[in-house]
Amino acid sequence: MAQKRGLLLVMTGASGVGKGTIRQELEKTEDYYYSISWTTRESRPGEENGVHYFFKTRDEFEAEIHSGLGFLEHAEFVGNHYGTPRAAVEEQLSQGRNVLLEIEVQGAMQVKKAMDDAILIFIMPPSLTELKNRLVGRATEPLEKIEKRLSKARGEILMAHEFKYCVLNDNVERAVQDIQAIIRAERLSAQRLTDEELSEIVQH
Amino acid sequence: MAQKRGLLLVMTGASGVGKGTIRQELEKTEDYYYSISWTTRESRPGEENGVHYFFKTRDEFEAEIHSGLGFLEHAEFVGNHYGTPRAAVEEQLSQGRNVLLEIEVQGAMQVKKAMDDAILIFIMPPSLTELKNRLVGRATEPLEKIEKRLSKARGEILMAHEFKYCVLNDNVERAVQDIQAIIRAERLSAQRLTDEELSEIVQH
Repeated sequence: MAQKRGLLLVMTGASGVGKGTIRQELEKTEDYYYSISWTTRESRPGEENGVHYFFKTRDEFEAEIHSGLGFLEHAEFVGNHYGTPRAAVEEQLSQGRNVLLEIEVQGAMQVKKAMDDAILIFIMPPSLTELKNRLVGRATEPLEKIEKRLSKARGEILMAHEFKYCVLNDNVERAVQDIQAIIRAERLSAQRLTDEELSEIVQH
Repeated sequence: MAQKRGLLLVMTGASGVGKGTIRQELEKTEDYYYSISWTTRESRPGEENGVHYFFKTRDEFEAEIHSGLGFLEHAEFVGNHYGTPRAAVEEQLSQGRNVLLEIEVQGAMQVKKAMDDAILIFIMPPSLTELKNRLVGRATEPLEKIEKRLSKARGEILMAHEFKYCVLNDNVERAVQDIQAIIRAERLSAQRLTDEELSEIVQH
């Protein structure tokens, strides 16, 4: 029988909402291909090529946009390109493997347009105050930048209807179980049944 | 905060596929209102009013069609009416309680038309041969009637794409877990988020 296409899971939400932690927990029970972004920016100390990003030249990035399969989503920040290349994702999906993207909301909306079967999961903070506490707790950014992030998060939360699922992250364990249930339910979507599978059942 | 609407779960599939057994198992962990059908046929020995059916007169049934809230689905078999009255289902849903209907495929398709948010779950047999074995094992019907049921089941299986989910019943425990995952995932549907909930999050 033809290989059944994998699920394309797009986990998104504000900075500080806990996407990374959820992904690390999810990895313990779920098999999926985690798509690593390409970027044209310089690697920072401690960052490894192929782990944190694929570090590419501007020429390589532009060649992929114009002559390769392109990007499921890409954006430019302060002169650097960032993006999710389509080729690797398509390859894994067609081999039947689930793919997880962990990306910003803007990118998730691009993936939604590019891929009909993308499953957008929005991770919701319990409140903006709680999100602020988490960002302040990280102590990696000045308060002014945090306030900008919160203002952006507010707008994203108010567009939550654009996503397919919304998972509240007030408890990591429960949030992970929620996503496990989403994956299990999505596998059961009747749209995923192939004519071959149906024939198999009625002919035996 | 306004009560969040319950989920309307419609479990359907061929006779003998195991819907009743799955429902009994599901009852142990999930709270839902199980909608009992109305019928105008005579009760059989052992059948209780309000348990197996609500036994109604033809006048009562017709009054509900024409002057009440009507039926989510109804049909006539050999001169008797059968149907799922809408009023009780709507009342439970608006109180935030999940509702489960266990009905025939034809009825499920009527509910799909009547209720946008109905979640149709098709229970799939492992094969037609296995379904035949189960029906023969029940020993309640002549072979000729069983053959008719199988021919009907074949047609229903081939229209599986009409449903939202398709759960294979080759193992009751796994099928029940599948439905539990569907219920959990459906509760997380972003469409179910109310503006009130979103305001609650951004204002705190």
